[in-house]
Amino acid sequence: MIYAGIDLGGTTIKAALVNEKGEILISRSIPTKAERPYQEIAADMADLVLDLIKDQGLELGDVHSVGIGSPGAIDPVNGEIIFAANFADFHHVPMAALIRERIDLPVYLENDANVAALGEAMFGAGEGSKNSILITLGTGLGGGIIINGKIFSGYYMGGGELGHIVIKADGFQCTCGRKGCWEVYSAATALIRMGRERAQQHPECRLNRLYDGDLTKLNAKDVFDAANGGDVFAIDAVEEYSHYLAIGTGNVINIFQPEYVIIGGGPSAQGDKLLDPVKRQLKREVFGGDTKTKVVIAKLGNSAGVIGAAMLGVINEND
Amino acid sequence: MIYAGIDLGGTTIKAALVNEKGEILISRSIPTKAERPYQEIAADMADLVLDLIKDQGLELGDVHSVGIGSPGAIDPVNGEIIFAANFADFHHVPMAALIRERIDLPVYLENDANVAALGEAMFGAGEGSKNSILITLGTGLGGGIIINGKIFSGYYMGGGELGHIVIKADGFQCTCGRKGCWEVYSAATALIRMGRERAQQHPECRLNRLYDGDLTKLNAKDVFDAANGGDVFAIDAVEEYSHYLAIGTGNVINIFQPEYVIIGGGPSAQGDKLLDPVKRQLKREVFGGDTKTKVVIAKLGNSAGVIGAAMLGVINEND
Repeated sequence: MIYAGIDLGGTTIKAALVNEKGEILISRSIPTKAERPYQEIAADMADLVLDLIKDQGLELGDVHSVGIGSPGAIDPVNGEIIFAANFADFHHVPMAALIRERIDLPVYLENDANVAALGEAMFGAGEGSKNSILITLGTGLGGGIIINGKIFSGYYMGGGELGHIVIKADGFQCTCGRKGCWEVYSAATALIRMGRERAQQHPECRLNRLYDGDLTKLNAKDVFDAANGGDVFAIDAVEEYSHYLAIGTGNVINIFQPEYVIIGGGPSAQGDKLLDPVKRQLKREVFGGDTKTKVVIAKLGNSAGVIGAAMLGVINEND
Repeated sequence: MIYAGIDLGGTTIKAALVNEKGEILISRSIPTKAERPYQEIAADMADLVLDLIKDQGLELGDVHSVGIGSPGAIDPVNGEIIFAANFADFHHVPMAALIRERIDLPVYLENDANVAALGEAMFGAGEGSKNSILITLGTGLGGGIIINGKIFSGYYMGGGELGHIVIKADGFQCTCGRKGCWEVYSAATALIRMGRERAQQHPECRLNRLYDGDLTKLNAKDVFDAANGGDVFAIDAVEEYSHYLAIGTGNVINIFQPEYVIIGGGPSAQGDKLLDPVKRQLKREVFGGDTKTKVVIAKLGNSAGVIGAAMLGVINEND
């Protein structure tokens, strides 16, 4: 059976046809042009899937369903995007219904962090596990929770906000309104802040040699590169970053004891250089001093979203 | 149908026969004498249930099952107490099998915080909800999580350790080895510490007038009483306490978005005096500034454990 998946992003709409092994048969991306009315965006999403089906030489009847991963606050039951920032007018968008107007198949809608977690759990670093958690380190810190093979996002909508667990009471202000959220200490942007602080305090820090000294241009990879190159100040920044990443990961394990905690996003490209210090500190962060949970790096990269979205058809057919 | 429940504590063994409405038909307590070999304790537990059945004029065939809530690390699948502190020799105790030797019924074993959560969810403050969380404020902070009417304790055993979520990175040392656990800031013992600190700093604090000034004898109720009586220093201690209780409760809601967060344990006897400041602060602690989750005070008191233990038979028969 073939499953269609759509990864709706603020910049790009990506669609793919995926088989039951999680293999992408065909995929294509188009610009979102997020400033447009949502009806136009939905029409483009549907047409993209119809094009892929045709170009793959398939009929509509060969495809099981269409799954969509979308940013923002999602109502999966009603197939509605309640609100999404970075789009012109995304308030209560009946996205599933709009796609169904053009494609006569079951349509499923979910939050993008959740579908990425589903993709990684089933066909990525989770190796088919039914109980795993994906942490995505980016501008924010996104969490996706898979329990018994299903997406867990709380009883009322909008749970699973792992980035908005306070790990440092009365700490730095978070965009969500709380102070000291995990996101403020472990998003990729947190490492940039930590690197910038060192550079400002220590003129001899190598980070000052980049971008003609314009520290506003620093990215997370710059800080890792400087640390990997032996800069003691950058090493100190990475140490601080891994300290908080271990604390938050320890929280997740003490609550969920999942098969896997999977780390994705930009900093995860560092592989063991990111993971080793986290694992070392985790020994004192997990209840009882030990856990069976494996902490691993995500494998599917940018394809996690589109594969996971397609798999919404699989987990819903098992209901 | 009648369900037997046993609440095994370090001081007391309590047993009851409970009907499907969660009503206790008969109950009785005996001293645990925790220094004894576990075989003797198990025999007393079984005999207590058999006595209740006989005294209630029932036959074994009238009883569905025996459920046990036990402190410590529990393996519910194998009915084993892996380890429990405060008992003489509780390592890998096959408790369910020991009870079955004397009572020919299905026997279920679970962690005591989890069965109390089940009792409160089904027949207490949760009003029959299938998705609620019980926080018990005592010497430690116990958490019990009910999802879809079942106890959730992680994929691997020992999850659901809500008291061991770090809410203040690099904060006070916890007995678990971590620093800054929620338990260290919101257990009943934390309020005692906060009251004692004020009393030491401010000779005019009313808490100094108790116990001939012996601050080691303070309990949580003393601090509430002084605050309720208008002592500004005790009020300050209660404010600090409710601040951390709101932060931890906000974490739980952002993750689980349950129908209810139920607060139990000694401090919950304060009712709205405890709850009101927590609810007020929660508005800025939950994602999106609002939640449908109701935060309420536990209702079943010391009976939550024995009722929840009995209900292990109900949730397992629905499998």
